[in-house]
Amino acid sequence: MAKPISIEVWNPSGKYRVVSTKSMPGTRWIRLLTDNDCRLEICTEAKTILSVDDILALIGDRCDAVIGQLTEDWGEVLFSALKRAGGTAFSNMAVGYNNVDVEAANRNGIAVGNTPGVLTETTAELAASLTLAAARRIVEADQFMRAGLYEGWLPHLFVGNLLKGQTVGVIGAGRIGSAYARMMIEGFKMNLIYYDLYQATRLEKFVTAYGQFLKANGEQPVTWKRAATMEDVLREADVISLHPVLDKTTYHLINPERLAIMKKEAVLVNASRGPVIDEVALVEHLKANPMFRVGLDVFEDEPYMKPGLADMKNAVVVPHIASASKWTREGMATLAALNVLGKIKGYPVWGNPNQVEPFLNESATPPPACPSIVNAKQLGPAIFKALGANDVATAY
Amino acid sequence: MAKPISIEVWNPSGKYRVVSTKSMPGTRWIRLLTDNDCRLEICTEAKTILSVDDILALIGDRCDAVIGQLTEDWGEVLFSALKRAGGTAFSNMAVGYNNVDVEAANRNGIAVGNTPGVLTETTAELAASLTLAAARRIVEADQFMRAGLYEGWLPHLFVGNLLKGQTVGVIGAGRIGSAYARMMIEGFKMNLIYYDLYQATRLEKFVTAYGQFLKANGEQPVTWKRAATMEDVLREADVISLHPVLDKTTYHLINPERLAIMKKEAVLVNASRGPVIDEVALVEHLKANPMFRVGLDVFEDEPYMKPGLADMKNAVVVPHIASASKWTREGMATLAALNVLGKIKGYPVWGNPNQVEPFLNESATPPPACPSIVNAKQLGPAIFKALGANDVATAY
Repeated sequence: MAKPISIEVWNPSGKYRVVSTKSMPGTRWIRLLTDNDCRLEICTEAKTILSVDDILALIGDRCDAVIGQLTEDWGEVLFSALKRAGGTAFSNMAVGYNNVDVEAANRNGIAVGNTPGVLTETTAELAASLTLAAARRIVEADQFMRAGLYEGWLPHLFVGNLLKGQTVGVIGAGRIGSAYARMMIEGFKMNLIYYDLYQATRLEKFVTAYGQFLKANGEQPVTWKRAATMEDVLREADVISLHPVLDKTTYHLINPERLAIMKKEAVLVNASRGPVIDEVALVEHLKANPMFRVGLDVFEDEPYMKPGLADMKNAVVVPHIASASKWTREGMATLAALNVLGKIKGYPVWGNPNQVEPFLNESATPPPACPSIVNAKQLGPAIFKALGANDVATAY
Repeated sequence: MAKPISIEVWNPSGKYRVVSTKSMPGTRWIRLLTDNDCRLEICTEAKTILSVDDILALIGDRCDAVIGQLTEDWGEVLFSALKRAGGTAFSNMAVGYNNVDVEAANRNGIAVGNTPGVLTETTAELAASLTLAAARRIVEADQFMRAGLYEGWLPHLFVGNLLKGQTVGVIGAGRIGSAYARMMIEGFKMNLIYYDLYQATRLEKFVTAYGQFLKANGEQPVTWKRAATMEDVLREADVISLHPVLDKTTYHLINPERLAIMKKEAVLVNASRGPVIDEVALVEHLKANPMFRVGLDVFEDEPYMKPGLADMKNAVVVPHIASASKWTREGMATLAALNVLGKIKGYPVWGNPNQVEPFLNESATPPPACPSIVNAKQLGPAIFKALGANDVATAY
């Protein structure tokens, strides 16, 4: 006999059976489902990562939709089981879906949702937090204080970097990279150098205008520069934050050669994807350069760190918490719930998955749409049509 | 026979004997003294805090000037010894001088220097670093990761606060408080509420202009408000940073009653003076409110923490490193050296101790002045006259 699996049931008499493989932050997502005739079952097993077998048990014989996590393996086995159980919808509680075999979902006619549009600011703020923590040596200073080693003020104790007037380098100036750049430019009066295959026109225009604004107010203007090569950024910047997409061209983008050209007292931040940095080479570089500091949210062998990293005082390491703000996580839960609810109800998909504010307004009924279905096109226009903000405004 | 004391001697044949009780960051201060015919003796004893006897031994029979530290007790004993040794100048390497009995210095005709004008931005950036570290739980997340407890991404792991759109409360909107406010407003688009006995006109004007600038660029403007009472700030703000002067009216300004009116998930930061917070009450509050978070650079019984504080995961604690940037600490060392050198040379005092840039320019000879002598008036105009930037410009 298989082991039992622990769940928490909301609205037991609901018509549609929806399963969430994890408890998620907030309660609005629960209310949205139960108010719409769903019986919601939340898995309460203590283990961090559910196996395919665990999830098969959760799906059972009859299941309309599942909300799952990045750590789960959603392929043919699970999607065909969900189809057999009468299901039509799955949503990751994540913007990424590396864990999902979308082809398999297509074959089984399962809509696959994700949760874009709520992560930008929270992720950029985490990158800024790692930057400041590394620049001012907050973690090692905290451990020193907590260990009772502080005996009195000393001129050399935990001397770090003043950001004002220094240069921030951004590699990958998309939504998150641009948001981070603005935090460092406006907040700390840093000058910008960035590298991106595409010109960040909007960012450039804003920083130009901001520099003029500062000047008009009698202050030193900030400057920006688009670098011709990534190496220019690495050589010139005092703080460097990585925001590229992970693909073959960005795998081990930070390697021994590129570490060698960075300033000896530079701060390097990575809240994008672990494999963007050659982590073994980074550990060697941290050992050889005690004033070089790094802030990492992601790791090459997540959830593990390469040997030696955990011992480095000049590293700040956090467990993939870039999207971990209350606002964002509750937003992700809401969007995931509305993705599966929308499919159950037969709603169309929303027109712009990066502008999802109407779904997040707690004091209003959300639009009758699925916020973001990544395989809507493949599932065919007969099933989904796109719905823009204007359509909804009309529909209200 | 007394124990020997370890020193490092620079320019042994220099005419004026200057003692520094500690090694200080950078080398410019050393060069400035040795280039001006000083024999410089730097104490290299490993102990954190030198006793009065240690410093008496350093002063010896003949000493023109001493550069000292906040942790030392500069009273009648040391100033009279310095006078007997032929000395005329002392400078703290600090903007504060709680450790100095200025009356005793006056009686002995010793000029007392301090190092203002270089701490504002570095201190405000530390307060911002503590704010972000507390808001995003960086220290506890780092310890979790380092301890190998991370098994995989989880929806509830270290969920913190998104700053954007929240309210920052500043208590004491002087130079440092205003600089901090701007970092949080411009960097993170927070709205401001502040309390100060004086209107922060300059800050208000800037934030108004910045809000208009944002609006003109199609963005949500930020707002500001001067609170009628400190309680209004504590009740309304999501993040509160303390920047008051420490005196009888601000001792235990944060007490159990005031903690009780703050939001349960607020972030409180103190990089001003330890006794501004009732630290025993704070520990109780942290225990009772696990989502209330605090970032502290200073402590009531520095260098010690009140019982229990070191065990609190919702606290970030650092050992009085608000001024610990390379730029500021090297600037402090330079100003301290120029204070004593100026007195030895018979220079007047600088007109505005908060605008000391001309002394910090590494590629120019500093102005012939003492950057900041706190008892210049008491020592009399016969000895010191004030010298402004214009006078110096003429003199060059």
